Amino acid sequence: MRLLVIGGSDAGVSAATRAREVNPTAEVTVLLVDAFPNYSICGLPFYLSGETPNWQDLAHRKAFEGIDVLTEHRAITIDPRAKTVVAAVSAERKSFSYDRLIIATGARPIRPPVPGVDLAGVYQLHTMEDTFRLERELAEGKSVVIVGAGYIGVEMADALTRRGLTVTLLGRSTVLPTVDPPLGRTIEAHLRDHGVTVYTDVELSAIERHETRLEVTGSRGVHVQADLVLLAAGVEPNAELGVAAGITTGVKRALRVNHRMETNLPDVYAAGDCVETWHRTLKRFTYLPLGTTAHKQGRVAGENAAGGAREFAGSLGTQVVKVFDLAVARTGLRDVEASRAGLDALTVETNAPDHKAYYPNSWAIQMRVTAERSGGRLLGGQLLGHWQSEIAKRIDVFATALFHDMNVDELNDLDLSYTPPFGSPWDPAQAAAQAWMSAQRTEATRRSLR
Amino acid sequence: MRLLVIGGSDAGVSAATRAREVNPTAEVTVLLVDAFPNYSICGLPFYLSGETPNWQDLAHRKAFEGIDVLTEHRAITIDPRAKTVVAAVSAERKSFSYDRLIIATGARPIRPPVPGVDLAGVYQLHTMEDTFRLERELAEGKSVVIVGAGYIGVEMADALTRRGLTVTLLGRSTVLPTVDPPLGRTIEAHLRDHGVTVYTDVELSAIERHETRLEVTGSRGVHVQADLVLLAAGVEPNAELGVAAGITTGVKRALRVNHRMETNLPDVYAAGDCVETWHRTLKRFTYLPLGTTAHKQGRVAGENAAGGAREFAGSLGTQVVKVFDLAVARTGLRDVEASRAGLDALTVETNAPDHKAYYPNSWAIQMRVTAERSGGRLLGGQLLGHWQSEIAKRIDVFATALFHDMNVDELNDLDLSYTPPFGSPWDPAQAAAQAWMSAQRTEATRRSLR
Repeated sequence: MRLLVIGGSDAGVSAATRAREVNPTAEVTVLLVDAFPNYSICGLPFYLSGETPNWQDLAHRKAFEGIDVLTEHRAITIDPRAKTVVAAVSAERKSFSYDRLIIATGARPIRPPVPGVDLAGVYQLHTMEDTFRLERELAEGKSVVIVGAGYIGVEMADALTRRGLTVTLLGRSTVLPTVDPPLGRTIEAHLRDHGVTVYTDVELSAIERHETRLEVTGSRGVHVQADLVLLAAGVEPNAELGVAAGITTGVKRALRVNHRMETNLPDVYAAGDCVETWHRTLKRFTYLPLGTTAHKQGRVAGENAAGGAREFAGSLGTQVVKVFDLAVARTGLRDVEASRAGLDALTVETNAPDHKAYYPNSWAIQMRVTAERSGGRLLGGQLLGHWQSEIAKRIDVFATALFHDMNVDELNDLDLSYTPPFGSPWDPAQAAAQAWMSAQRTEATRRSLR
Repeated sequence: MRLLVIGGSDAGVSAATRAREVNPTAEVTVLLVDAFPNYSICGLPFYLSGETPNWQDLAHRKAFEGIDVLTEHRAITIDPRAKTVVAAVSAERKSFSYDRLIIATGARPIRPPVPGVDLAGVYQLHTMEDTFRLERELAEGKSVVIVGAGYIGVEMADALTRRGLTVTLLGRSTVLPTVDPPLGRTIEAHLRDHGVTVYTDVELSAIERHETRLEVTGSRGVHVQADLVLLAAGVEPNAELGVAAGITTGVKRALRVNHRMETNLPDVYAAGDCVETWHRTLKRFTYLPLGTTAHKQGRVAGENAAGGAREFAGSLGTQVVKVFDLAVARTGLRDVEASRAGLDALTVETNAPDHKAYYPNSWAIQMRVTAERSGGRLLGGQLLGHWQSEIAKRIDVFATALFHDMNVDELNDLDLSYTPPFGSPWDPAQAAAQAWMSAQRTEATRRSLR
C-alpha cells in the first residue's frame, strides 16, 4: 500500500506516523514544501524572543522511521483518476503514484488588502524561512508595529518586548478577540503595563516607507512609525491544490471532509489547517485551524488511510496563550458564538482564587461560563489568570466536561483534587458553576416578577 | 423547619449553608464542639510551617448568615423518636429539638495501640487545639519523629523541615502508600534530598521518655530519639454518637447512608468523614475521608434536608499533595485496588514533559494509568511532577474522564489546550493513554504467541 502525504507539518506527519503504526508494511511518502519537517509553528515566538535559543529544538520530531520525507518537494497537481501527484523539485517535475492520498497543505497568513504589505521591512510569521528573515532584523532598540491582536499578535508583542524592541500592537477589534472583551481588556492592560502601545478597533489602511522607517496608517487617525512591521492578521486555508483536483469546499473555502477525514474524491483524505473542522458543541462544521486539531485529524486520516476505521470526535476550539505573566484560555462557545448558532445562552463572569488565599502567592482567576439559559447545558468556558495558576489544565477540565455535554450544575459533582497550595475544596470551576446557577435563578425570578 | 447540624467543619457548614440557600426560611442551628467553625484542617501544616502566619486565616468561612453557630456545644445524645439532641455546654446540658438532623461529626486520628502514645511530647494534628499545643513546642534546631508517611505525614515532614526542625519520618509501608511504590520512591528520595530521614516498612512498637528526649522504637531494629513525636497514622470515623442513636454502620464502622445522604433513621442525614462514601468507579461504598467529599456530601445532605432532591454522585478518591518542590496526585483506582475489586487491570507507567522541552523550565511528569486490560475502560491515574507542572489540574482531567467512564483510547479524542509554555499538541494525559494502548497491544501479541 502506497500512502502519499502532501504536507509535512503537524497533520501530515501525524498521518504518516499513525499510518505506519497501524500498517507497518505501508510505503509512506511525505512531500514537504520546505526543509523543516514537523517544526512547531507555535514555537516561533519563543525562538524570536530568545527563550528558545536554538531553532533546531523547534522540531516536534526529528526521526521519521519508515517514512520517506522528501524535503523541498512542492506538490503542484493531483490527478485523482490516475492517482498521481506531480511535485516541483527546483526546476524539475517528479510524479508520485498513490493508493491513498492525504492532503495536509495547511494554512497561510492572510495578507491585508492594503497598499504597502509587500514593502521591505514588512514581515509575516508562518514558516521557518519567515522566521529567519525576521530574526536577522531584530535588534534591541528597534521598533515594530504588529498588525493583528490575536494569539500570534499578542505572543509576538510579548516576544519582541522581551527581545528589547519597542512594540505597538494594532487590533481590528479588541485585544484577543477570540475571548470576551472583559478578558481582552485585562490582557490589554497587562500589555500596556509591559510597555506595549496598544490601539484597538483600528482598520489598517496603508503601510508606507519613509527612508529607513515604515509608517503604518489605520482608521481612527492612527499613524505609527517603526523600523519593522509584522503582519499577524490570521490565516486562511491553503486549499487550492485540493480544489483544483475537484475537492468540494465549505466554510472559508476549506476542504470539505467527513468524520473519517475523507474528501469527496475516492481514496483522498485531508486533515489540518486546510480542512473544515467538526465542532463538537455546535454540531456543525466550522474553520478552526489549531495545532492540536491538526495532530488529531492527521492521526485519524492516517489510521483510516492505512485501513483502520476511526472518526474525528470534534473540536471544541480549546486554546490557551501566555502573555507575559498571564495565561488566558477558552473552550467551547462564547455567548456571541452561541447566539449566532441560535442558542439561548447565558454567560456569567466570576472570580475565585487559584488556591486557598492563606497559602502564599494566591492569584485571582477571572472566569466566564457560558451555558444554555434553560436547562443549563454547558456551552463554553473562558479563564484568565496568572501563568502559574494552572489555567491551561483548568480549561481542560471544562473541555472534558464539554466533551460529555455536561450541565453546569453537574460540574459540582466532579471529584476534583484539593490541597491548599493548589486549590480549594470547591474548585474554581465549581465556584464558577455555582455563580452561574445563582445568576440563572436570579434572572428567572426577575422574569417571573415582571 | 428546624434543621439541626451536629458538627461545624466542612460537611456540617456546607450542609447548613446549602439548606439556607434552598430554603431561606429554615431555622438552622449548628452545634460545634470547639470554638473554630469551618477551619481548614488541610491548612494546619502550612500554619505550622510558617507559610500561613495567622491561624485566623485558616477559616474557610467567617460569616454564617442566617445560621446559628453554637460553639463549645458537644452533642452527647440523639433521641430519634423525640427528635431531640442533648449537648454538653461546660457543665450544663442543653436540649435541642429538630425536624431534620444532619450528623457531621467527622473523623479522629487513629492512636497506634502501643505504649507511650499518651506521653508528654507526643502530638497529633486534627483540631485547632492540637495545632496550638504543637505550635508552642516548635523551635529551630529541635527534632521530631513523625509516625505515619501518608498525606499528613509527608506534608508535616515538609512543614517542620521548613520550620527548622530535624525530621525523621516513619512509614508502615512505603512513603505515601496511597500511590504506587514507584511514585512513593520518588517522593522518598525527594524527602531525603531535603534532609528528612526516612524509614519505610516500620511498625511502631513503643514510645518511651528518657529525661527530655523521647525514644521511638519500631520493627526492623529502628530506634530514633527526638524532642517531639507527631502521630499521623490516619483517621477513623467519629461515629459513636450516631451508632448509639441506632444508625447502621458499614465499612470501617462509618455511618451508612444512601445516595441522598439519609441514614436509616427517619429525618436523620449524615455526611463527611463519619460516613461511608459511594465510590463512582468501584460502584460500591468505601471509606474515603476527604475535605472535598465532605463539602459535597454536606451540600447534598443540606439540600435534601431542606426539601430538595439531590444525590451524591460519588467519589473517585481524587487527591493531590505538595511535598517540597513536587506534587503527587491520584484519582480512581490503582492496580492493587482494582484487583481487590475483582477487575482485571493493566497499569502502565510513562513519562512526558509538562510542556515543550524547547521552552524553558520543562520538567518530566511521572504518570501511571490503570485501565481494564480488556476493553480499556479507564480505572485510574497517578501523576507526579514539579509543583509548577499543573499536576493538580492534570489529575482533574483524569477525574473528569473517569466521572464519565471513558476508555483510555477516548482520551486521545479530548480537545485539550496547547501552547508551548504549558503543554504539547498531544497532552501528557494523551501520551500516557497512547503508552497504555501500546503496552496493551504488545501484551496481547505476546499472549497470542505463547
